[in-house]
Amino acid sequence: MNHFSLDKYNELVSRLEELSRLGAVMGVLHWDQEVILPRGAVESRAQQMAVMAGILHDKGTHPELGELLDNLHASGASAYDPLQWCNISEAKRDYDLSVKIPKDLVQELAELGSRGHQVWAKAREENKFSDFAPTLKRFVELKTRWAQCAFPDLSPYDANIDIYERGMTVDKLTPIFDRVKVELKILIQRIKENPRTRDDSFMNGNFSIEKQTALGKRISTAMGFSFDHGRMDVSVHPFCGGAGPDDVRITTRYREENFIESLYAVIHETGHGLYEQGRMQEQRDLPVSEALTMGIHESQSLFWERMIAQGKPFCEAFLPAFQESFPSQLAGVVPQVFYEAVNACAPSLIRVEADEATYPLHVILRFEIEKGLFDGSLNVDDLPEVWNQKMEDYLGIRPPTDTLGVLQDVHWSGGAFGYFPSYTLGAMYACQFYDALLKESPAIENEIAKGNLQPVKNWLNNKIHSRGRLLSPEQLVQDVTASPLDPEVFIAYLKAKYETLYNLT
Amino acid sequence: MNHFSLDKYNELVSRLEELSRLGAVMGVLHWDQEVILPRGAVESRAQQMAVMAGILHDKGTHPELGELLDNLHASGASAYDPLQWCNISEAKRDYDLSVKIPKDLVQELAELGSRGHQVWAKAREENKFSDFAPTLKRFVELKTRWAQCAFPDLSPYDANIDIYERGMTVDKLTPIFDRVKVELKILIQRIKENPRTRDDSFMNGNFSIEKQTALGKRISTAMGFSFDHGRMDVSVHPFCGGAGPDDVRITTRYREENFIESLYAVIHETGHGLYEQGRMQEQRDLPVSEALTMGIHESQSLFWERMIAQGKPFCEAFLPAFQESFPSQLAGVVPQVFYEAVNACAPSLIRVEADEATYPLHVILRFEIEKGLFDGSLNVDDLPEVWNQKMEDYLGIRPPTDTLGVLQDVHWSGGAFGYFPSYTLGAMYACQFYDALLKESPAIENEIAKGNLQPVKNWLNNKIHSRGRLLSPEQLVQDVTASPLDPEVFIAYLKAKYETLYNLT
Repeated sequence: MNHFSLDKYNELVSRLEELSRLGAVMGVLHWDQEVILPRGAVESRAQQMAVMAGILHDKGTHPELGELLDNLHASGASAYDPLQWCNISEAKRDYDLSVKIPKDLVQELAELGSRGHQVWAKAREENKFSDFAPTLKRFVELKTRWAQCAFPDLSPYDANIDIYERGMTVDKLTPIFDRVKVELKILIQRIKENPRTRDDSFMNGNFSIEKQTALGKRISTAMGFSFDHGRMDVSVHPFCGGAGPDDVRITTRYREENFIESLYAVIHETGHGLYEQGRMQEQRDLPVSEALTMGIHESQSLFWERMIAQGKPFCEAFLPAFQESFPSQLAGVVPQVFYEAVNACAPSLIRVEADEATYPLHVILRFEIEKGLFDGSLNVDDLPEVWNQKMEDYLGIRPPTDTLGVLQDVHWSGGAFGYFPSYTLGAMYACQFYDALLKESPAIENEIAKGNLQPVKNWLNNKIHSRGRLLSPEQLVQDVTASPLDPEVFIAYLKAKYETLYNLT
Repeated sequence: MNHFSLDKYNELVSRLEELSRLGAVMGVLHWDQEVILPRGAVESRAQQMAVMAGILHDKGTHPELGELLDNLHASGASAYDPLQWCNISEAKRDYDLSVKIPKDLVQELAELGSRGHQVWAKAREENKFSDFAPTLKRFVELKTRWAQCAFPDLSPYDANIDIYERGMTVDKLTPIFDRVKVELKILIQRIKENPRTRDDSFMNGNFSIEKQTALGKRISTAMGFSFDHGRMDVSVHPFCGGAGPDDVRITTRYREENFIESLYAVIHETGHGLYEQGRMQEQRDLPVSEALTMGIHESQSLFWERMIAQGKPFCEAFLPAFQESFPSQLAGVVPQVFYEAVNACAPSLIRVEADEATYPLHVILRFEIEKGLFDGSLNVDDLPEVWNQKMEDYLGIRPPTDTLGVLQDVHWSGGAFGYFPSYTLGAMYACQFYDALLKESPAIENEIAKGNLQPVKNWLNNKIHSRGRLLSPEQLVQDVTASPLDPEVFIAYLKAKYETLYNLT
């Protein structure tokens, strides 16, 4: 890089750092809103966030930034080191995405988003899909127009998928999801035909919230979460937020009668949190260090929740800690019983409550519906019937109401199409990552069984977290697992696990 | 206002609302930093706040804003309703203040401020005033230059006072403080010569923090603080902050061995909080609704802390609540004993720990020193000796170290000269306000003694909080009390109270 472009590159760095820090401020405001905002301040907080969003938009779409990026980008990758080039190309991607959307479309999407949420909440409460249908129709129209502006070379649904999982398309996902669907339908049917009665009465009782909180922090700490660079609090829906890698804030929620739900929510969110805390040490306010995609982020939470914490070695290692917290409730429970209890599999109506074997079918159902909405093969008005038919077909149960069916998820009320696949992509990535870890460190499960999770965290730090956006998701999976995304690994894992758990022969 | 200037006025409103909301965001960041920020995030939070400060500065000094203000201001007060005119003139005052200071001076003050705090903290820790002296000298120079830019018509110290208590000057303060000084020196001497042994052993014991917290919230609620529009949390130094009148956040700190300190800190900060929550209902993001000055703000906290909560009717009303929280520790304590205990008077070295009769002498000492520093009659190097001499003269005690003397306060380490008088102005305003309330509602103390604080809060809401910046402090005091600021009211109050308390004859 010559002197001239070094100056320009440094100017870009200043602008991007400013944007990143303003984004972190938004992170604080959002966390504050979800966790501790007085209820009378909701309106004024919305006004504050609107001002901040306006400033972020103005700075993120400033013509000087665009000119700078065009200039720097024109020199090509070879003119920069890989981190610099990543910053330039990531920033250019964001910038181009922002400026390509006409202002009236941005505004209409924002308005429909805030109105849509209320319309959906009411429709769900009243079990009236027809009240929500016009919003959904309008969102499909607007998001189609948005896609044509943002990614004219992609089909509209592919464009929507791309912002959550770049490079992923309907053509790539369809065969993968079809394989998963076929195999899981069979597996679930076999499980249904071989029910096991298990004693999981210990999972219900009275578990003090104070003790649940202490236990959650203990397990999160064992996973390697730094409470010097983060917090754990309570919110209605668990999430991981905060203000950058030094200030990672996870949340959970508590029910006195069940400690498992909250504990596994903590583990899940800690997985997200470790990704953020584990970002590369340098360039922390620049795009190169940021988390890669939603699918990869979800792979980190699910890695810890499912591959580790629902695994036998973890149950062996940490059951004593759980028993220390709740001695009377967990008296006499042995690791195998605990392991079986946290891995119960049964079809259910609600995605967020589904187990790991049925969850993908909830996602695939939504993927197929979204695909149909965007390619015109499905009408919004037909969704309730299509939904219920697919539920019967894939899981053998039929939602008695739309509230428990097509109206259950928040995503469409904000126009977030293309997000659902990330969940199952994350699960599949997690499974392949765990497979790779086992191959590299065959003794790792001995360490886990001793309660030593440090090598697991270090491996994820090195292989994934610290690599930021230097690789694409496809490159990352290939690099870490020496294989592309492969549904067979996921299918084999689930089959082996549940055949043993349910004595399927 | 004609159509043309209505458009301009509306543009001003938009710009001012944006500034106010950005200020509220800074309020959230500051509260978060003091209350819950993970310690590893201090550096990144500073960077986030620096970006926000830069944006606030850019927007607050934007030439278009200045032109708009000049334009609107040129029409004169008669062209607007009083609220509009107040917004225009307040905004113009702020704007002119910001743009009149050369950028290099702003930067040097900011740098010296952040370095100065560290230098001061170390010097205080090591009891080495000479290490802090160069910083203090430089601050006097810079703040003199600042004053010449900001208020060329005022003397440098008057200019420094003006930003905390507009319209107040050395010439007005000197005779007032001289009167207070003469009378309080005599009063304190008489108290010293008539010591009373009181049984305040109940004030020390073991008071669970959980119960202190519940009690604090109970008393704050009784005062009328809305927890739907605010919070109460814990910080190292109690303060009142947050993000505007819908989101007022007070803090306190707890010691297990003493519940009075924390409780009265809650009452003090609630007094500030009620001012903010009580702002006029309209125009909440515009200058007209903002709190008037530091002195008036302090009058609200001291009104509640001293005039109400250190008064007999309050002690009668709420002792049962305190005893409910701490039954064994407060068993057998009667209101008179409690009242005497919370009104003990004795000279002490540290301003923030001083009682209401000795506190003004701490302030006057600092006022006299600041005056001397700015008029050139005092050298920084002589401050320790001057300080100690005045302490002996006014309070009859001599600090054994500079740590317990001239180095005790944080204010000068940030160049905040002219702030100290606000504390005693606040105390005098509070006293006169209480006098006015008593005259208007002679039965008010019966209500207080019944624990009914609502009429007190309503009176303050109507007379002070909701009037924002429509009046100057002088006008407000005149309007509420039918008298100008008058030290005799304060002196008479203290004399009458302490002559009875200490049986002085």
